[in-house]
Amino acid sequence: MPYVNIRITKEKNVTPEKKRQLIEGATNLLHDVLGKHPKSVHVTIDEVETDNWGVGGVSVTELLERQQSK
Amino acid sequence: MPYVNIRITKEKNVTPEKKRQLIEGATNLLHDVLGKHPKSVHVTIDEVETDNWGVGGVSVTELLERQQSK
Amino acid sequence: MPYVNIRITKEKNVTPEKKRQLIEGATNLLHDVLGKHPKSVHVTIDEVETDNWGVGGVSVTELLERQQSK
Amino acid sequence: MPYVNIRITKEKNVTPEKKRQLIEGATNLLHDVLGKHPKSVHVTIDEVETDNWGVGGVSVTELLERQQSK
Amino acid sequence: MPYVNIRITKEKNVTPEKKRQLIEGATNLLHDVLGKHPKSVHVTIDEVETDNWGVGGVSVTELLERQQSK
Amino acid sequence: MPYVNIRITKEKNVTPEKKRQLIEGATNLLHDVLGKHPKSVHVTIDEVETDNWGVGGVSVTELLERQQSK
Repeated sequence: MPYVNIRITKEKNVTPEKKRQLIEGATNLLHDVLGKHPKSVHVTIDEVETDNWGVGGVSVTELLERQQSK
Repeated sequence: MPYVNIRITKEKNVTPEKKRQLIEGATNLLHDVLGKHPKSVHVTIDEVETDNWGVGGVSVTELLERQQSK
Repeated sequence: MPYVNIRITKEKNVTPEKKRQLIEGATNLLHDVLGKHPKSVHVTIDEVETDNWGVGGVSVTELLERQQSK
Repeated sequence: MPYVNIRITKEKNVTPEKKRQLIEGATNLLHDVLGKHPKSVHVTIDEVETDNWGVGGVSVTELLERQQSK
Repeated sequence: MPYVNIRITKEKNVTPEKKRQLIEGATNLLHDVLGKHPKSVHVTIDEVETDNWGVGGVSVTELLERQQSK
Repeated sequence: MPYVNIRITKEKNVTPEKKRQLIEGATNLLHDVLGKHPKSVHVTIDEVETDNWGVGGVSVTELLERQQSK
């Protein structure tokens, strides 16, 4: 029954294996903390383009460029 | 005013015609059950990659592979 | 696997029976259009206070007051 | 802490510059109205295909075609 | 057509007037940046209990307590 | 930057301590799997009334009643 939505920026290092670990980890978390049956846990991962995510009024694209130019 | 979000896995059989039927059906549902004016109903469909959806701690990609190998 | 989220304004006429009909109708829709197994369909209903929903820059609370004063 | 999700249809005119303005504007709004620190505001923009968004029981794809044929 | 969801923590200072300003401001933003017709813009505000929002692994309830004890 | 939304049914056993564990666990998960800085991880928990959540076309309220009557 639980539904977990994980939103992250779309980046190269988010491989299918990493996604597998996020799904497994979130499922275990709901089981361990609330006793939810693993079969009932749904997890979705939304990968958001860095142009489409902003923190502090600035897009993540721009934040990453600033970091690299340091 | 109602807003319906339908999240499904991204699969080939979800054609524009199928999406049209989901939009029409969800709109009719809100009209029939709650008397909402169809013009006020918004529906969005999110198609999620099978790598990005997990049930029971396993990705849908893996679940589909298991089914096919049976 | 499908996950349907229905957002409506919180109003007195949304009884448990109406919610039951929304859940059943949305589940049938996913089954009829995409062949999804009913047991796999999850539906959640979010009831949003009329102060917390705006259309056209105006809260639904205010829109309802305008209608009544006509 | 605030989290703002903006869902729009995917259209050519939504350039990175427009997205930048949406992020900045939403961040300023939360600061101006509720005094939230800009650094704490997160904004995500979801661009939804016009086939996947319906209003009044009809997809936006179809609504746009009707407008053009007028 | 645009749909804006604003998630904030539930706090006393979020009055109906403040909500009105958030709705108006978000609607104007979509109009000013993307030329969306105000009547087509929907805004919902989700007020989340401070126990139910975490940043940096800690609930906002706890973060506020730490601030006050300083 | 990551944003995790956990939706569960509203039940008595979901104490503030359990919520604290969900927040901490989800934050650690994003750190361990993707190397995200804990301070950047936001977690929200939505507690949904059992009347407002359906699985297999039936509300959770009804599913729980069936279990108890067995």
